[in-house]
Amino acid sequence: MASAQALGALGAAVRQFRQERGWTQEELAEAAGLHMTYVSDLERGSRSPGLAIQKRLADTLGVKVWEIFRIAEGE
Amino acid sequence: MASAQALGALGAAVRQFRQERGWTQEELAEAAGLHMTYVSDLERGSRSPGLAIQKRLADTLGVKVWEIFRIAEGE
Repeated sequence: MASAQALGALGAAVRQFRQERGWTQEELAEAAGLHMTYVSDLERGSRSPGLAIQKRLADTLGVKVWEIFRIAEGE
Repeated sequence: MASAQALGALGAAVRQFRQERGWTQEELAEAAGLHMTYVSDLERGSRSPGLAIQKRLADTLGVKVWEIFRIAEGE
């Protein structure tokens, strides 16, 4: 399990990209083929997404996975 | 499960950072607290590391997770 801090930061980065696009959690979930509860949990840092989900979220948001991590890691 | 291509690229990026440091797979595995077989599989793209392992590998290699993904994603 990743640290709570790292998970929280990753979730916050996903939320930031989502909000920049003006999407609700429900809209992101639907576009990415995920359950809205999963997206909600992930943004709050209580889900640890595997590589496949990281990739799917990035694709849906129109960014690269590394761009999400760069925000999450504060750079 | 992430795509074979994405996994292969991530593994290749880890290998690149490891080799830049002149480390064997065994040395990286030991430093990161992973089994050597896991590192070998990961570099060949046959393991899908979760966030905790991604973070541990990055910390051990002295880079950020996003820097590994940036190489893996070809930028």
